[in-house]
Amino acid sequence: MFIDGLQYCNWSNKIFEDWRSANLTAVHVTISYHEQFRETVSNFEKWNVYFENFSNLIMPAYTISDIEYAKANKKTAVIFGFQNPSPIEDDIGLIKILYRLGGRFMQLTYNNQSLLASGCYEEKDNGLSRMGKEVIEEMNRVGLIIDMSHSGEKSTIEAIEHSKLPITISHANPSFWHNAKRNKSNEILKLLASKGGILGLSLYPHHLKNNSNCTLDSFCKMIIDLIELIGIDHIGFGSDLCQDQPDSVVEWMRVGRWTKKIDYGEGSASNSGFPKMPSWFKGNKDWKNILNKLQELGLKQEEIDKIKGLNWFNFLKKTKGFR
Amino acid sequence: MFIDGLQYCNWSNKIFEDWRSANLTAVHVTISYHEQFRETVSNFEKWNVYFENFSNLIMPAYTISDIEYAKANKKTAVIFGFQNPSPIEDDIGLIKILYRLGGRFMQLTYNNQSLLASGCYEEKDNGLSRMGKEVIEEMNRVGLIIDMSHSGEKSTIEAIEHSKLPITISHANPSFWHNAKRNKSNEILKLLASKGGILGLSLYPHHLKNNSNCTLDSFCKMIIDLIELIGIDHIGFGSDLCQDQPDSVVEWMRVGRWTKKIDYGEGSASNSGFPKMPSWFKGNKDWKNILNKLQELGLKQEEIDKIKGLNWFNFLKKTKGFR
Repeated sequence: MFIDGLQYCNWSNKIFEDWRSANLTAVHVTISYHEQFRETVSNFEKWNVYFENFSNLIMPAYTISDIEYAKANKKTAVIFGFQNPSPIEDDIGLIKILYRLGGRFMQLTYNNQSLLASGCYEEKDNGLSRMGKEVIEEMNRVGLIIDMSHSGEKSTIEAIEHSKLPITISHANPSFWHNAKRNKSNEILKLLASKGGILGLSLYPHHLKNNSNCTLDSFCKMIIDLIELIGIDHIGFGSDLCQDQPDSVVEWMRVGRWTKKIDYGEGSASNSGFPKMPSWFKGNKDWKNILNKLQELGLKQEEIDKIKGLNWFNFLKKTKGFR
Repeated sequence: MFIDGLQYCNWSNKIFEDWRSANLTAVHVTISYHEQFRETVSNFEKWNVYFENFSNLIMPAYTISDIEYAKANKKTAVIFGFQNPSPIEDDIGLIKILYRLGGRFMQLTYNNQSLLASGCYEEKDNGLSRMGKEVIEEMNRVGLIIDMSHSGEKSTIEAIEHSKLPITISHANPSFWHNAKRNKSNEILKLLASKGGILGLSLYPHHLKNNSNCTLDSFCKMIIDLIELIGIDHIGFGSDLCQDQPDSVVEWMRVGRWTKKIDYGEGSASNSGFPKMPSWFKGNKDWKNILNKLQELGLKQEEIDKIKGLNWFNFLKKTKGFR
């Protein structure tokens, strides 16, 4: 079982073949950032065409059985998520609709304040809004997993506490290793784990110690420290991999339609595009480097298996949405 | 097994309780007429709320198992259909999307010419358009059933012939009994049956001999004549029942947004609203009148069972969409 908790690649035959070479069982795929409902539907339409054209490589994952079927039949199961609540607009009824269409994860915010909560780039974070609480309850009822990767500290804590089901931070790293707006405090990580949640470890350079120059050794030693802090059962990968994407895409992620200026997010005017990936993880072909290093550092195979996908699988099994 | 092939009632607790009193296993419910995609999604949202609030009475039908589950658990399974291709707009990708949302039937036209074919009220009928042929192929592939109840003669014949799977005329009567624009020629009925299709018999007064004054005897004798013509396996009910609907709804059906004038459809200026239902079928409580009369006229129980729902059930089982 090998599951990546987040990717947003420039989808193509090549990417899907890389997934198969890496033997990825399932990938949580971002299907929209700032896209409204109808735009998100168009993205689902595009994926339906991928599923038709590349049915030998990929399939949609609506249930745990789909993921098991993918594993048995050497395909990669695609789990859909939204990085912002834009697709539900101001309409709570769209949660069930998007679930029916295949959505299984939704972030309550993407860096900025949303109708539901606050993002990690806002100066102030009031926690959950009135609609935010309603949406968490409906997501719990329907089976959409709450993802707080891009949310502020207070919003994240309140979401973990308000949700009756475990939530995820699908792609971020611990602040104790690299202090960045997108990385998470020990308080959040411990609370997340204590409630049965899961953290997907990011390989996006801005989330890594020394960014693009991060060493494989440092990344893997952080995992060992994190096991110490929150226990091994709450850790997976969420690579945040944007393989083959042009720089215009990172601008869309950061700027959407919320400003007329340029927002550089974690980047800067002199480094405005996608950051250079670390030499040991340039794409889906490089997973083996991390897995080998974890073994070299003394992790047992059963521990590596958990981090590699079993923890994600068990987490998804617990949630309502994959039954 | 008791299935009605079409209703568009003013949905309420009362209607759903009437369904249960009649012991209806499943009903094909119209979820949109002229509604565009986003409006149709809003209608699905409303139904999701009905399913939450009346879960003791109704449930959605996505598969044959759902219909069997409904029967075993004394609920009525709701099968969704669109009476016009308005919900797919000009976008063939929306067929799969609407299928995922629960749609299982779609008419290629509603009285007028559409992007796909011609309606039974048009003076000229060119048969299937280029997009019409593409849409039939995609509906076949995805599992949406083609319904030609409101289509013109030539379009209907071409749809039956172009479709690789059996199609339906879910709510209409034979022209040999009552010659109306919405009723169907012997040629269509025989072709429909020869390809494994099914006709749902309508109880809408404009489709009945002598309209609102039609006798129960006449209606049931027509069924016996129809069995003679096309065989018993291709006949079901499709009542077209609009129980409790205000007259504004029949105006929406007829006029939609395609004209600024009033179109009276099968009615007239002096009889512009919903026609008076025949005394022996005013609503879902009156099904027994028809079933008793069929028995009185000499049909065996196994024949009545077929017309009552087994034929619809077998038809749905054959289609791809309910697997």
